[in-house]
Amino acid sequence: MLGFIGGTGPEGKGLALRFAISGMEVFIGSREKQRGIEAAENLVSKYSEIDSTLVKGGTNEKAASDCEIAVICTPYAGHKGTLENLKQNLAGKIVVDVVAPLSFQKGSISAIEVEDGSAAEEAQLLLPESNIVGAFQNVSAEDLLIPSKQVTCDVIVCSNNQPAKEQVMLLGERIPGIRSLDGGNLENSKYVEQLTALLININKIYKSHSSIKIVGI
Amino acid sequence: MLGFIGGTGPEGKGLALRFAISGMEVFIGSREKQRGIEAAENLVSKYSEIDSTLVKGGTNEKAASDCEIAVICTPYAGHKGTLENLKQNLAGKIVVDVVAPLSFQKGSISAIEVEDGSAAEEAQLLLPESNIVGAFQNVSAEDLLIPSKQVTCDVIVCSNNQPAKEQVMLLGERIPGIRSLDGGNLENSKYVEQLTALLININKIYKSHSSIKIVGI
Repeated sequence: MLGFIGGTGPEGKGLALRFAISGMEVFIGSREKQRGIEAAENLVSKYSEIDSTLVKGGTNEKAASDCEIAVICTPYAGHKGTLENLKQNLAGKIVVDVVAPLSFQKGSISAIEVEDGSAAEEAQLLLPESNIVGAFQNVSAEDLLIPSKQVTCDVIVCSNNQPAKEQVMLLGERIPGIRSLDGGNLENSKYVEQLTALLININKIYKSHSSIKIVGI
Repeated sequence: MLGFIGGTGPEGKGLALRFAISGMEVFIGSREKQRGIEAAENLVSKYSEIDSTLVKGGTNEKAASDCEIAVICTPYAGHKGTLENLKQNLAGKIVVDVVAPLSFQKGSISAIEVEDGSAAEEAQLLLPESNIVGAFQNVSAEDLLIPSKQVTCDVIVCSNNQPAKEQVMLLGERIPGIRSLDGGNLENSKYVEQLTALLININKIYKSHSSIKIVGI
């Protein structure tokens, strides 16, 4: 089962939706049990493409303890606090960090400078017994939430653990249109996370839901 | 005329080659006059695609003072010193900054944190009377140097001056395969510059010459 930590926002719901459509069990976690349950019910009632038995919701703790792979989708403001509380539940597991630390100020969107380099590296320091993998930061949540739409983009996957990275690369390609690319070590997550700020700025200019593809590979 | 400041490296020569093929006059500047002249002669003798009357070389000062648009291609280590010396020559002109500040250490490639945010913002502070435009940082120099190869990628163009930005966007599309995209203000150059570090890491993994395309626009 895929456990979505802080999974009630657009990115978490979008990814949960697509993985459920691909036939995987997903669990949408939230700080409040009822919000997680409602997010799961909402997905099932809104999207006839889903097998309703595959989608459940509840607390972040339950998502973390019951999952094989966790997917962190909290706002960056809640990133550290949430992970600190889940250290034991996530020990020994693959933890996919989707978080792009962003600041929205005075109509301007920019990447937050993270002391540890990136959200993903911060997660690795907070969860030393987990295998952190940075991925999916640039995928348009709006596009994920339209199942008829092929999400044509590359997911750049970074981790210090090669088997964990390869497992998440395979996971990404369960979503039609996505190509997973090996982005190297976790320190490269910084560039992928910060790229999200550029894409959102481009979206404002072009009124688009942009993503990236790496060409020449 | 396009004046290439520090234009004797692969990125400067690659861009000069492509713009010369497109029919523009180019001038390859170097700290040493003779090196600039030799780089120009080298391009003309190596590539029969070029009209030899379009390509000249010499000092950075001459490139800066004679050009309509300057293109900064120095290594980042020489960025500040070079621009400080050319402040008067570049006043009132469009200055395209191609520089991606990179650190190569212990077999690892990473982006250098620039105090002013990015090389392009640093250039704008050093050259307050010029209109700085960040562009071309992600284009593969290796691909530029193979004229038969279509350079299929997006160039993300950032500037605080909209007419200058639009002029450089048009310039970019003189190279077959390149699409220019408005990347917003100069502060967004940071993400584009840093992306170069990610692409070089990906190139190491895949033995490729990668570039990017923004999809969904």
